[in-house]
Amino acid sequence: MMPKLLAIAGGTASGKTTIVKEFMDFLGERGQLIGVDSYYHSFSELSFEERTKKNYDHPSSIDMDLLYSDLLALKGGQTVEVPVYDYVNYTRSSKTHLVEPRDLIIVEGLFALYDARVRELFDLSVYVQADADERLIRRIIRDRKTRGRSLESIIDQYEKTVKPMHEAFISPTKKYANIILPGGAQNRKGVELLKSYLISAIKEDS
Amino acid sequence: MMPKLLAIAGGTASGKTTIVKEFMDFLGERGQLIGVDSYYHSFSELSFEERTKKNYDHPSSIDMDLLYSDLLALKGGQTVEVPVYDYVNYTRSSKTHLVEPRDLIIVEGLFALYDARVRELFDLSVYVQADADERLIRRIIRDRKTRGRSLESIIDQYEKTVKPMHEAFISPTKKYANIILPGGAQNRKGVELLKSYLISAIKEDS
Repeated sequence: MMPKLLAIAGGTASGKTTIVKEFMDFLGERGQLIGVDSYYHSFSELSFEERTKKNYDHPSSIDMDLLYSDLLALKGGQTVEVPVYDYVNYTRSSKTHLVEPRDLIIVEGLFALYDARVRELFDLSVYVQADADERLIRRIIRDRKTRGRSLESIIDQYEKTVKPMHEAFISPTKKYANIILPGGAQNRKGVELLKSYLISAIKEDS
Repeated sequence: MMPKLLAIAGGTASGKTTIVKEFMDFLGERGQLIGVDSYYHSFSELSFEERTKKNYDHPSSIDMDLLYSDLLALKGGQTVEVPVYDYVNYTRSSKTHLVEPRDLIIVEGLFALYDARVRELFDLSVYVQADADERLIRRIIRDRKTRGRSLESIIDQYEKTVKPMHEAFISPTKKYANIILPGGAQNRKGVELLKSYLISAIKEDS
């Protein structure tokens, strides 16, 4: 088993999750999903108070060394223990999630294309692109609904960290993509073309 | 025979031609190429002097009505007479080029994704993206070599029409693409994924 690795990068609320869900449904038992979010640093040397104040929209919040070594192991056919992040305590939990290699491993996240070593591992790199205003609208709706946050706090965070970090560290990774997918999951022709890649990844290994 | 239509759009010297050549070599007898450049207006109501002064980097220089009706006819399985442009006299020549429908018709040009009616005809739309500075370098090299133009005149035209028209009318069509291909023909993984589309277009019809 030599898995293929597919990166799905893109800004906040660009439609990455919707596309990844569709791909994973399509792949079934042949697919495996790794969220870059699982690799937030534990920052266990800091107090809880200090940890809550870190900028988690900055790429330095991600443990790229561990992400790299896990992806390298998976690509080599090994099972890995993916960390489980504890969002309540702002640190890595003591639990891990056992992930076995499968035909296609999807690596999804804002910073999926940020680290040069990680990028080298991908067999195909996709950047999901959506207009900034549409991403903001989706983020506001999502954060109010699922996280019960006020509009003011969502916009405040968006302006203080989400937008500047996007422009500084996420949007520039677009040029490392093999495919930029405009319009997210609504772009059916683009999504269907990418599915032909999933099919080829499954076929070559069966 | 119900041909599929593939658009290859993108800025000047973005690598469209290299990719299209590779696709046409791959398709052989199953492929057909239409250059949007063939559809420059004749402007026969103007004098030669007036015609030389028109801005040919503006989308209004293209006869979109004729391009649309020709593509519609091809898609319907009819043979069309594509105009042949006379670059010496800045007008449409009296000759035409007989183009028959084939499995896949590639429509290539700066303004391939400009007209809404034309866009609707495409089965897949690709925008080839390259950095503006790299496109400029390639354009300078190409225009000096193949057109024997001075560096000054190339840069003058670039600043006066090529760049502003690109920003106003070409770059915005990126959002109508199903796939944005960064890095042009050097992006091998992206080009190979698009080739899987060519294969599917050939297969479905045979």
